[in-house]
This record gives sequence, C-alpha cells and structure tokens, in this order.
Amino acid sequence: MVRAGIIGVTGYTGLELVRLLGRHPRAQVTYATSLTSIGTPLKAVVPNARIAGDILVEALDPDRAVEKADFFFLCLPHGQSMETAASLFERGVMVVDLSADFRLRDPGVYARWYGEHQRPGLLAEAVYGMPEIYREQIRKARLVANPGCYPTGVILGLAPLLKGGYLQTESIIADSKSGVSGAGREPKPGLHFPEVSGNFSAYNLAGAHRHTGEIEQELGFLAGGEVKVTFSPHLLPVARGILSTIYARPSKPLDEDSIFGVYRDAYEEEPFVRVYGPKGRLPSLKDVNGTNLCAVAARVDSRTGRVIVVSGIDNLVKGASGQAIQNMNLMTGQEETAGLVYDALYP
Amino acid sequence: MVRAGIIGVTGYTGLELVRLLGRHPRAQVTYATSLTSIGTPLKAVVPNARIAGDILVEALDPDRAVEKADFFFLCLPHGQSMETAASLFERGVMVVDLSADFRLRDPGVYARWYGEHQRPGLLAEAVYGMPEIYREQIRKARLVANPGCYPTGVILGLAPLLKGGYLQTESIIADSKSGVSGAGREPKPGLHFPEVSGNFSAYNLAGAHRHTGEIEQELGFLAGGEVKVTFSPHLLPVARGILSTIYARPSKPLDEDSIFGVYRDAYEEEPFVRVYGPKGRLPSLKDVNGTNLCAVAARVDSRTGRVIVVSGIDNLVKGASGQAIQNMNLMTGQEETAGLVYDALYP
Amino acid sequence: MVRAGIIGVTGYTGLELVRLLGRHPRAQVTYATSLTSIGTPLKAVVPNARIAGDILVEALDPDRAVEKADFFFLCLPHGQSMETAASLFERGVMVVDLSADFRLRDPGVYARWYGEHQRPGLLAEAVYGMPEIYREQIRKARLVANPGCYPTGVILGLAPLLKGGYLQTESIIADSKSGVSGAGREPKPGLHFPEVSGNFSAYNLAGAHRHTGEIEQELGFLAGGEVKVTFSPHLLPVARGILSTIYARPSKPLDEDSIFGVYRDAYEEEPFVRVYGPKGRLPSLKDVNGTNLCAVAARVDSRTGRVIVVSGIDNLVKGASGQAIQNMNLMTGQEETAGLVYDALYP
Amino acid sequence: MVRAGIIGVTGYTGLELVRLLGRHPRAQVTYATSLTSIGTPLKAVVPNARIAGDILVEALDPDRAVEKADFFFLCLPHGQSMETAASLFERGVMVVDLSADFRLRDPGVYARWYGEHQRPGLLAEAVYGMPEIYREQIRKARLVANPGCYPTGVILGLAPLLKGGYLQTESIIADSKSGVSGAGREPKPGLHFPEVSGNFSAYNLAGAHRHTGEIEQELGFLAGGEVKVTFSPHLLPVARGILSTIYARPSKPLDEDSIFGVYRDAYEEEPFVRVYGPKGRLPSLKDVNGTNLCAVAARVDSRTGRVIVVSGIDNLVKGASGQAIQNMNLMTGQEETAGLVYDALYP
Repeated sequence: MVRAGIIGVTGYTGLELVRLLGRHPRAQVTYATSLTSIGTPLKAVVPNARIAGDILVEALDPDRAVEKADFFFLCLPHGQSMETAASLFERGVMVVDLSADFRLRDPGVYARWYGEHQRPGLLAEAVYGMPEIYREQIRKARLVANPGCYPTGVILGLAPLLKGGYLQTESIIADSKSGVSGAGREPKPGLHFPEVSGNFSAYNLAGAHRHTGEIEQELGFLAGGEVKVTFSPHLLPVARGILSTIYARPSKPLDEDSIFGVYRDAYEEEPFVRVYGPKGRLPSLKDVNGTNLCAVAARVDSRTGRVIVVSGIDNLVKGASGQAIQNMNLMTGQEETAGLVYDALYP
Repeated sequence: MVRAGIIGVTGYTGLELVRLLGRHPRAQVTYATSLTSIGTPLKAVVPNARIAGDILVEALDPDRAVEKADFFFLCLPHGQSMETAASLFERGVMVVDLSADFRLRDPGVYARWYGEHQRPGLLAEAVYGMPEIYREQIRKARLVANPGCYPTGVILGLAPLLKGGYLQTESIIADSKSGVSGAGREPKPGLHFPEVSGNFSAYNLAGAHRHTGEIEQELGFLAGGEVKVTFSPHLLPVARGILSTIYARPSKPLDEDSIFGVYRDAYEEEPFVRVYGPKGRLPSLKDVNGTNLCAVAARVDSRTGRVIVVSGIDNLVKGASGQAIQNMNLMTGQEETAGLVYDALYP
Repeated sequence: MVRAGIIGVTGYTGLELVRLLGRHPRAQVTYATSLTSIGTPLKAVVPNARIAGDILVEALDPDRAVEKADFFFLCLPHGQSMETAASLFERGVMVVDLSADFRLRDPGVYARWYGEHQRPGLLAEAVYGMPEIYREQIRKARLVANPGCYPTGVILGLAPLLKGGYLQTESIIADSKSGVSGAGREPKPGLHFPEVSGNFSAYNLAGAHRHTGEIEQELGFLAGGEVKVTFSPHLLPVARGILSTIYARPSKPLDEDSIFGVYRDAYEEEPFVRVYGPKGRLPSLKDVNGTNLCAVAARVDSRTGRVIVVSGIDNLVKGASGQAIQNMNLMTGQEETAGLVYDALYP
Repeated sequence: MVRAGIIGVTGYTGLELVRLLGRHPRAQVTYATSLTSIGTPLKAVVPNARIAGDILVEALDPDRAVEKADFFFLCLPHGQSMETAASLFERGVMVVDLSADFRLRDPGVYARWYGEHQRPGLLAEAVYGMPEIYREQIRKARLVANPGCYPTGVILGLAPLLKGGYLQTESIIADSKSGVSGAGREPKPGLHFPEVSGNFSAYNLAGAHRHTGEIEQELGFLAGGEVKVTFSPHLLPVARGILSTIYARPSKPLDEDSIFGVYRDAYEEEPFVRVYGPKGRLPSLKDVNGTNLCAVAARVDSRTGRVIVVSGIDNLVKGASGQAIQNMNLMTGQEETAGLVYDALYP
C-alpha cells in the first residue's frame, strides 16, 4: 500500500488527487498539507471523496511528512514547488511535482517563462511524466515532473506524427480550448460565473502562454530538432476539459487511412489513449471528462495540404492528477491503470 | 416606411428579423410566411417582438406577397430559396436572400457545395451583402445575397490584410467556434441540450463545411487571386455567437502597431466594426451578442512568424438578420444603422 | 435632458445603468464615481455602452456631484448608501437609491436585517420605487428606494391577489431561483465559474435572506396586515434572471379563469408587466432577460387547494437598473417607458 | 455473475445501465435490445462504457432473451413496458422495470395518470424499488418497479418525518428542479440547446405531472393515510441532477437539532443517503452527480412554522439506473453497493 502525501491539497488538483486515491486499490492519502484549512479534517475539506482514517490538514513539515508518507504529490504554484521538491527528494522519498518547476530541461528556458530556477542541479533527476513517451524512465525515476494540461493534449496529439518524421516542424499551430478549472480554484474577475457563462474568448495569444516552452521542448525531442509552435489558448464556458485542434503541414504524403495507421500503431497498446477512426465522429470533451483518457483523431485536408489533429483530455485527470497517479503507479511498480478505471458520464 | 415581408418566419433568422424590425424606425413587417403555423397571428409566433397590426402567418403566394410588402427577406433552406427569390425579383421588389443560393458567383462552385443551381441567370443580379466591402453595389442592388455566419466573421477579420497584400494567401487557417443557434431551430440529436451542455467538439473538418467555398471566393476577390483556406468549425455550448481565431503568414513585415494601423484605417468609418488595440483584452462573444457588431483584434507572433486575428460576431445578428437589415437600409436609402443600435448585455 | 450621476459605477447595477442611459432619449450620464478606476474614462470602464462626452470616473465629491448632475443613482452597498443619499438629497437633487437603506419603513426592522440605521429621519422622505404600486407617490418623490431584485418579482407576483384579499396571508411560500449576477460583480469562491456551472443549490433558507423583511413589509401593506413568508433563494447556473414560484392558499374560491381576470385587471395598463393566460406556456427567464418586463402567470391546484404564481424578471433590469430608470422617468416627468423599450433575445 | 439483459438500451437510462454494469464486479450485460440500432455492436452504441464480449443490439425476443440473460432491466416507455415485463416474468427471470407501469398499487390510480393497465394481475408481484423503504421486500421480489426520478428525491427527503408522524400531511409542497436528461434522449423543441441554455422555467404545475400520483402513494404509505402534495417541476439548464425544495408544517415541535436527529437515525446505516447537518452548506447537484447518492438537509423556519427539506440526486443514477442496480444487487443476494461506488466530480 502506497502511503501518499499531498502538498497543497486545497487546490483543484490536490482535491482531485484525494478523490482518485480514495478509490485506488493500493494507495491511500496519509498526509495532506495546505496554507489554509490547517487543523481541519481532510474529510471536511474534500467531502466528495472517500478518505480512510482521520487525517487532518497540516502545515508542511518535511521531517514529519516523510514519516507519514512515502510518496508525494506537489500541488504548489510554479516557483514555490522546487524547494519543497528538493527537501522531500533529499529525504529519499518519491515525488511527482504537478507544477512546472521540473518540466523544462534547460534552466535558461525555465528562466525565460517562469523566472530563475533555484534548484537547477535537481533537473537532471527529473523525468517528464508522460508515460506514453517516457514510460521506462518514469519507472526508474524518483522525481517526476507532471506535464501541464495543455501540453498533455498537444503532445499526445502530435507525438506519432513527429516521431515518424511526418511533419514540417515549423508549420505547427495548436488552437486549444480549455474549461475554467484549468485556471485554478482561486476566484478571479475573469473567471466569475457571470463573465464566463455564455461567453468564449482567446487569451495569451502569440506566444504569451507559458505552456508554449514546454510544448516546444517535448515536440522538439520527438522531432529530433527545434520546433516552434503557435499556441493559442481559449477559455470555454465549461468546468472541465481541453480540446485542441492542431494544424501542420506534412513532409511526406499522407491520407486519412495512412495517418490513422500511424496513430493506431503508436497507441494501440496504450491504456489511456483512444484513437478515433478516419470516418465517424470526432472527440468531444464529454468523451473524456472524468477519465484519464486522451482521445485523438486525425484528418487530412487534401485541398490545402494540411493535417488536422483533434485531441481531448480532462484537464484535471489526464491533464493533471490522473496522470500523476499513472506516474505513481509506474514509479511504485503497480499496475499502470490502478485507480484510474473510470468511464465518462454520458450525457 | 418600408413594408417588409419575411419568407420563412419561423426559423431563428426569421424570428430575429421580426424582433429587429419591430424597433426599426422606418420599416415594419407587413407579410410573413411559413410552412407551419399558417393562420396563426405573428404575435403568437414571435411573442418577444413588438409587432404592429394583426398579421397572420400565411402560406407563400408571390402575387399576394408583392401586394402586401415591397421588400423581402428570404429565410429558406439552401436550394429552396432561389426559385422564390426569382419569382419575387421578377415582380419588381427588392430581395435579401439569407440562404447560400446567390452567394457564390460561379454556378460550378455552387454545384460542388450545394447541388445544381436552378437560376444561374440571376446570379449576375446578386450582390454579396457585406456592406464593409460592397456598400456601393448594395445601394444599387435589387437582389442581395446575405453572407453566411462563419464567412462574415472570417472575411471581416481578414479583409484589411488581404486587400493590402499583407498575407501569403496559401497560409490561411480559420479555427471558428459557433454557438448552437447557428445550426438552426430544428431539434436534432447532436443539438439536444444534454449533449451540448458542458461539451465542446469540432465538426466538418478538412474542407467538409460548405461555408469554405464562400469564404474562399470572397477572400480571393480581396486578395486578387485564388485563396484556399483550412476552415475548422466547432460547436460551443452557448446559444449565440461565433469567435474565429485566424492564422496566416505575413508577406511583408508587420508588427502589432502597424497591423493595428491597417485595421484602424480600414474600419474607422465603419459603424459596425470595432477594432481592438494591440494591448489589452481580446474580443469575446459577450462583447457582440445581441448586436450587429463585428469585434476584431490582430496579434503578431514574431517567434513563429504568424499573424493571428480574432473576430467575434453574433451569428444571428451581424451573421444573419442584422446584416440583412443593414443591407435593407442601404438598398432603400435609409440610414445604414437604422434599427440596429443595440449594445451588448453585460454580464 | 436629465443629467444623471451614478455613484458606484463599477458594479453590475452601475454598469447596467450606463448601458441603459446610453440609449435613453432624454437622459445622459454626466457624472460617475467609484472607489476603483478613478481617473479612467467611463468609456473604458463600460466598453459595451454608448457614452456621450469624455467623462472620467471620479472619487465621490457631493459638491462637485451636484454641479455635474441633477439626478443620482446610488449603487452602493447596504449601510454605506444612506449617508451619501442624505448628503445629495440635502443638496436638493433627486436620488434613486439601489441599496436597501431606504426600503424598510421601520428603522427597527432595518436594524434587524442590516444593522442600525444612521439616517432614520430621511426614511419619511423615501418612497418604495415600485411604480406598479406607488406610481403617484414616486412622481412626487425626491428620494426613491429602488426595490430589491427578489422582492420585485415576488411582490409583483402577489400584489393583485393580496390587494383583492384573495389569499390566506400566513400561507405564502416564495421559492425563488436567481442568476449569479444578483450576487454582484465581486468574485467569490461560491460564484467561481467551475463551482456554479452544471450546478444548482439553495442558500439562506428559513428566513436567513435579508430580502425577507422587504418582501414581508410590502406584502403586508398590500394585504392590510402582517404577512410572514417562507422565502427560499436558490442559485441558478445562468448569468441573469430570477424566476419565483410562489405558493399560497386562497381565502375565496378561485379558478384559473377568475384568477387570470384578477391579474389582467390589475396589470392591463402596466407597460412592464405581462400576464400569461390560463392555458399555454409559463414564463421563462429568456422571456424577460435584457428587458424591464415582469412576466406573471397564475395556476390553481384544485386538488390541493393552492394558488401557484410564477413570476420572472431580469434581476439587473426590472430587478435593479431598469426599474431605477423607470422611477427616474416618473420623478422627472418623462414618458415612463423612455429608454426601456427592449425586447428579449430569442434564443 | 449476473447475466443482465437491457430492454431498450438506447435511451439515457439504458446507456447508463451499460456504463454502470461495465464496472460491476459480479454482473455483466449479456443481452441488449432496441427498436433502432439493431445489429449494431453494443460497443458502438455505448462508446463510453466498458463492455465484455461482442454483444450486438437485437430486436426483443423473449425466448432468446431468457436464454441469454437471467436478469432484466426494462427501459421502455410507460404503457409499453407492462407486456414485456409480463412475458419475461412468466419465463421465470427477475425484472426491474424502470417505467411507471408497476409503481402504482391501484390500477385505478394508474389509469388516471397513464391510461388503462393491461396487466393488473401482476401488480401484486411488484415491489416498489426503493431500498431505503422496502429493502426486505425487494430481496424477495422477482419484479421490482424502479421509482421515478422526481419521486426518489421527494420520498427520501420526507420519509423520516412522515414515518415519525412529524408532519401535517395536507401541508406538503415539493418544488423540484431537474436537469434535462430527465426528459429523455429524444430531441424536442423545448429541449433544443439554444432554448434551454441560459434559461429556466416551470412546467406541468398544479398537479399536471404524472409523478404526482406516485409521490402521493408512497408518502401516503409512510404517513399511514392519504397525502396530497403540490408538486411543481422545473427545467434547469444542466444535463443531470434533481434538487427538490420541500415545504411542510410540523405537527409536533421540531427544531433543527431534533430534526437532524430524526434524519440521522433514519439514514445512518444507509449506504446511499447522506444527511447534511443543521449548520453548514446545503446539498447541491454537484455533490451527487455521477453517484447513487441522495443528499438531504432539513431546516426549520421558526418564523413561519415550516420545515424545509432539500434533497438532491442524480436523476440518471439514484433516480433511475443506479437505483435499478441497487435493486438488482438486493434481488440477487449481492453486496448492495456493488458496482455503485462512485464519488462526485468536483468541480
């Protein structure tokens, strides 16, 4: 039984971890911290979850943490996570960091998007936690950088084509649409219900969103060379889910059957990627919400010479806490799908 | 006082015409037809509108129609509109056709997207009803083809750049997101509330949507040569509004100030186009819903060498019935903005 | 031309006043204050509105205020409004106060729900601003207490029956459902989009909501004796609108035709109340949103001996800023409907 | 392993049964019928579910049905279900009927709400499938009438008080608000997305809804005498969930602590009823959506002498398919909660 600690339990990703771990067959939450709610029973903080025992929310104390738990999920803001990750890692436990602090290999790139990195020495220990790409490294890692929500959908959407050398790497555009929970639990004017309801808008266009660097790093590794993408985030009037519509020009001839073959071959063994066929409907948010699935479909626009990929995930599950548990399962030698076997609600 | 007839009054665009004309200072609905609701008072069919007199919904009779009204709005399905347009036009009245039947100059292109054209001879009479581009021709026209909802947003979003020769014409991608009213008033499984609520999806990707031909025709006229676009429609869980995020590569150097200048110069006299500046927020659906406005902003992604344009409209107003009344105002020599001075609700 | 000042322009009711006054034929905003945004052009603060001139948002200065404007709308929190109202009133201008500070006749009742009243002497000057009940008094008033949003719907829903003595006054239950804008523009955890979207809940049950006192006061005046109501507010996942379902036992025999007669007689001259007939559909939020209308229908449940009334309003228009302008029109001798002739969007 | 057959698999309740049974530890779908989709793999009809084997949707054939399955769920329209139930029951299998056909004990009452009953002889075999009230009878039944969605929430909300004799039985009003999936999967004008989005309305007021008879029957059994209720359904702009706000006058003194005691005592052993305490928040739809839970809270309005109960369920789970599986578990001697251990998504 994995004894799991959640550092920063009161945000949406922390709460989602508690919910998912509550039904995990071989893990349970044994420690939880927050800056607020200290001393409150975890059951009161996360009333929708099944919680064993009488855990109270605590202020973080690394020494006590590693007594109480063996495996840690860090749900802290970017920039604040690295020190905590280091202090726990140095005490010998395993860590999945849900912040961006260990996602970027190059501290210079990190600095450009997030500010100076305080623990560059630890970057070499960190594995980017996307099992479909780094499964074997994750199995051996003690520190995993859990991918961002937008990057998860975009990278899984493009990986088979980039790995196969099918795309002109300067041609990629990702037009992504996210539910509001991706922006966190803290109320803000732009996320106030009356502002978002019945509305839709773009934000942080033209390379202003910090996930751009993360997407480019991983697409570059897949392509074996530099990749620059135009990444355009949008805010959908839904609570959960990200759908990305991705455009690129092929560098080799592709039709819809052959492109389907590429995806099927890449993902047929993957428990959490569902490839949609060349005919029939496209992924929608409701296909994946509440699940750890990424749904992917590819189309070829022969009139204009472009490939169009649609990928859908639940930003809080495959885009955050579900993928974190998938990583935990790999790191601790369990069944990869343990605790993650949910089907989407319909309707 | 314009006496207006609405052919096909029970769909969303017909109902929206009744609503808007009810507050028009110099026009009123004097005739309305439908296949259903025949004999019902128009007041019962459109309870949210102000309706002068005691008009009953009738079955269409062209001879009676031209006795009762001088100006006609056709809200009929594609393919069924052309005969009715012809029969009214031949009786000497003015017609704005809200279907696609007279939008495409080339009957061969029409055939490819919609089926064979039955009245190709009448195409030469028709003017594409986008006042920002064809204002003078519309003033003299007796038959106006009212633009499609998606094309309205995409064309207004790109016109200044294409006219100025600023874009590589093979580089254009329009990623458009529409509210559900754009799909009409008839209930369908995919538009059933539980299916759309909390959901988001793409449809008709890779050149499968019929508005592609219309967009390409008008962008081609603006560019002075053939234009092919990748057009990707999506279904938003909102009742009204279309937001398009449009990508292209510049053919001349552009920065955000110069691009703003191009838009400002193109649109500063336009009563229904609002250009958003280089800093500050981007258009959202709520900025335009219920209004005849098109809101446009442009950004330059210098990292990837792309221009990104966002345009927003209300699909039932500027994307249909409002623009139709704008055309009527021009055709009948009235103030262009008459009856269209609404401000968006906030929130 | 009425020169209107808005005190507290940056909340939803202040913004809605700016929007509505922007199209008013004989009033315009000439002065606007806020605690934030001082020095910002009003046009930047309310981009969806038509604003004449170059007004800047200012900090409130009563002397300057009465130079700049003749008529004031107070959009301030309860408890903070009374002093400002007094200082303006004493300078001889007209005031509509949108807070609760002058709604309750009895300072003791005010104290129970809101805290001690600082200006009880001014209560005698204030008229409760519901034109359908106090039209003549409003015409002569210089200080009008604009009704609360929930009370507006409930009182208009019950007034004809209570005035006619048709109800057992201890039997009234109002089950009201409000859109989120009724809770104001300030972001709060419970109003964060992901929390409200797809959700529905009751709050402040069992007499805990402060509008209870206001409802009971006015129903008591109508009934000619004390009335106690069970008032249950709920939070709907929509931006605007309140629908109240109201239950009571009749004290005289009533059937659906006779009850319709009572409402029709009471409201047939009212420009902003629409009575729905005994057959046919019931009011919905979309029938009234964006308008100053109150839609009312009554049913008789003969099986259980109860009357059921449904009333719908837009909480920001008839429930706040629209009714405030209706009051301004009366107080300044204008057409009562001036600037308020909007039809609901459909769909 | 229970071999389960679903008759009428393509409606929302049939699809939800497939989803839930897909994760049930000791049951699986082995037979499924529909009027449409015949010959289609069940996997294509219910893509969001886990389905063992290669089941095709078939036309109903009772002889074949009882070869393929031992336990049947009937998801058929009212009036059509009774004959199928009879033909399966007579073949010796167990049946849970999700229609209303066996819910009403008295064929005369059935006739009043639904039309003449064709199989009144079978009514004596049927047990009303609410485990919290009829657990022991359900364990021995072969035919269970699964409760309606509205009745489930209202009955569970009132049962402890009625059983204890705490209420004046003529004083009950249930104001219920339902998500749209409760109206079924068939698209209809009033359920079209643009009509419901941003909207809210009441329907079938004053005893016109057929669930009234079912509610009154069961409340009458609990109270030991006739009960008449005013039941008011409303349509919420959400996909799933019913929240009922229920009003009654107590017949004995009650305060919030004592009323909480009554509920706690009644439900503390119940796996699927969650009682909320006298302080703190009230149930919301998101607390229960996707789960088999009923959340209940009670308040006392001492000012007006009323008890107010709020109950929330997911109409497709506890209000239909989840409760049906709970009944199956009891009828087949399994753990009552098997296959039903889901936690609500948050947010």
